[in-house]
Amino acid sequence: MSADGKTGLQLRSRIKSSGELEISLVDVPTPEPGPDEVVVRVEASPINPSDLGLLVGAADMTTARASGTKDLPVITAKVPEAGMKAMAGRLDESMPVGNEGAGVVIKTGSSDAAKALMGKTVAMIGGAMYAQYRCLKVNECLPLPAGTSPAEGASCFVNPLTALGMTETMRREGHKALVHTAAASNLGQMLNKICLKDGIGLVNIVRSKEQAEILHAIGARYVVDSTAATFMDDLTKALVETGATLAFDAIGGGKLVGQILTCMETAINKTAKVYSRYGSSVQKQVYIYGGLDTRPTELNRAFGMAWGIGGWLLTPFLMKIGAAEGAKLRQRVVDELKTTFASHYTQVVSLQETLQLNHIAVYARRATGEKYLINPNKG
Amino acid sequence: MSADGKTGLQLRSRIKSSGELEISLVDVPTPEPGPDEVVVRVEASPINPSDLGLLVGAADMTTARASGTKDLPVITAKVPEAGMKAMAGRLDESMPVGNEGAGVVIKTGSSDAAKALMGKTVAMIGGAMYAQYRCLKVNECLPLPAGTSPAEGASCFVNPLTALGMTETMRREGHKALVHTAAASNLGQMLNKICLKDGIGLVNIVRSKEQAEILHAIGARYVVDSTAATFMDDLTKALVETGATLAFDAIGGGKLVGQILTCMETAINKTAKVYSRYGSSVQKQVYIYGGLDTRPTELNRAFGMAWGIGGWLLTPFLMKIGAAEGAKLRQRVVDELKTTFASHYTQVVSLQETLQLNHIAVYARRATGEKYLINPNKG
Repeated sequence: MSADGKTGLQLRSRIKSSGELEISLVDVPTPEPGPDEVVVRVEASPINPSDLGLLVGAADMTTARASGTKDLPVITAKVPEAGMKAMAGRLDESMPVGNEGAGVVIKTGSSDAAKALMGKTVAMIGGAMYAQYRCLKVNECLPLPAGTSPAEGASCFVNPLTALGMTETMRREGHKALVHTAAASNLGQMLNKICLKDGIGLVNIVRSKEQAEILHAIGARYVVDSTAATFMDDLTKALVETGATLAFDAIGGGKLVGQILTCMETAINKTAKVYSRYGSSVQKQVYIYGGLDTRPTELNRAFGMAWGIGGWLLTPFLMKIGAAEGAKLRQRVVDELKTTFASHYTQVVSLQETLQLNHIAVYARRATGEKYLINPNKG
Repeated sequence: MSADGKTGLQLRSRIKSSGELEISLVDVPTPEPGPDEVVVRVEASPINPSDLGLLVGAADMTTARASGTKDLPVITAKVPEAGMKAMAGRLDESMPVGNEGAGVVIKTGSSDAAKALMGKTVAMIGGAMYAQYRCLKVNECLPLPAGTSPAEGASCFVNPLTALGMTETMRREGHKALVHTAAASNLGQMLNKICLKDGIGLVNIVRSKEQAEILHAIGARYVVDSTAATFMDDLTKALVETGATLAFDAIGGGKLVGQILTCMETAINKTAKVYSRYGSSVQKQVYIYGGLDTRPTELNRAFGMAWGIGGWLLTPFLMKIGAAEGAKLRQRVVDELKTTFASHYTQVVSLQETLQLNHIAVYARRATGEKYLINPNKG
């Protein structure tokens, strides 16, 4: 690494054919920016669940071991045999990590658009953000308003646009209210703020009393606990009151997706007049956007025939709505960055600290309420 | 019942709050046809899987017992406690059964359209077809070409339109080939004839060698057996060759739906160039239109994020495409009734025989290759 930015440390994740994950730091030359590119000194990049997927892959992090030096630590962990199949596409490749981040432009290409960013604090999307320097195109940068720190702008894309993507999908697909699981997450809190502001009914499903309290504290109106004995009744009641027929689920595994559809069907049928053995004709939809529970999804199909389940990802959604609509969503994020879309981090770590076992043990658990921010240039 | 058609026998199914199914025959007055209505002497009505859902509901037909008289037999059977919840909407209601059928018009209303049907053989849709006489609207009748018997026209709607609905859904949703499960069924054979005629790639999934032979005999090109040790490889190979990314599944329960999506993803990735931990961006879809396996659906979600699963029913599909498009499909059925859309029945029974335990034991199994036709006026 060099103080002039000519080289910098970059975090790499590699899964070897032998069944071992290796996370390390490598010193890489910073590319010369092309005419329409800039070099950013990265000062803040969050560890999102979507980053963990690439960072640790299918590895069992309870087997993680540390080696290397203080400046260049190395982490290794075992990948269970059952997980290796899904890793086939990335075997033995040294992959950079980090979907989004923010920092200060320290060098620019020759175009006016690039030069205009010199010295500015920008938010960035595009991967490889767990690095001291990142060369990227001008249109992958979002200039932040004066007075915004890199830490405040580090999470401009993934969580805010995902949350806005949920309410936007709701409108486009003709639903009037939403259900969200793992609802006390950073993303879930953001979604609550959006729904409260926009007057959208939101049923929050959480897995503990503590998580319910987090949401009540920020004004959430419908919070149901899936560990409560009365869960199915509580959920049905909230669905009757909100009319929600669309859910976004971060859990994936187990019975929850089917339970949500079953309760939606029960809620709809409370006002049904005619018996149909095919159930109600109201379309009920669950999008699975995460996999906190890696067990199989189990559906008892006790929810009629008018239902759908599918994967949901931010990037295809943004491609579907097009550049102009996407720009509107991004502008709203910038406008409300310190309110609706403010993120809270429980730890700020350097690249080296990111590779410490005590930190890995916390962030790899994907626990609600724990949120890490990496500052690759932390002194 | 009366020879002049003023009254007639009608089959009724009732599930009592006490947890008992009762199937019986009742003598009901035949309604006077309104101006735009006709009375049809029903001579043929198939027992489709979709009829069995209403006929026996959640009852365990291995507990069926016969009582009543030879002319007015009664069948009773126990509904397991676990099945009663899904029956809540129909409790203690005496419900007529039979989605479709065919017969001869014996009386008409005053309108020209109604009078024009006098003496004609017509196919019918609209329920309550397991009856000697059925009064219905002119537009619920499809006049059959001269030389077509009621038995030949009895299955004009459910199977033919469902099979055409599958290829039509394929085109509308941008897929180029199809997968079908329980593929040796009457419906499956019909779908093969359509796909062969229209040049559509069709991957047939069956559950035995015997079923595979049925399909090979009618010219099916891709037949894979889900009970074979090489099933996943066989299916993947057929998916690579056809490019199928849409499946229609009649099974519902177990791992099959997830296996189909997994093999689709593997087939797509055989030509993928870049690793994405979210899997391919090609949308893969499975529609579940039946529930031959009543166990839960189990998805391991090893098929990326670009996927969907949903319920599929003929009626909402027809509503979605509109009356004009629906009429085109119906016309094709009439044009190809004795070729593409010919149905084969293994038994023709009277209403009384429909309520005999030996017949129930056969048709309630929903076994591929067994197909019943009821002739309510069988002498």
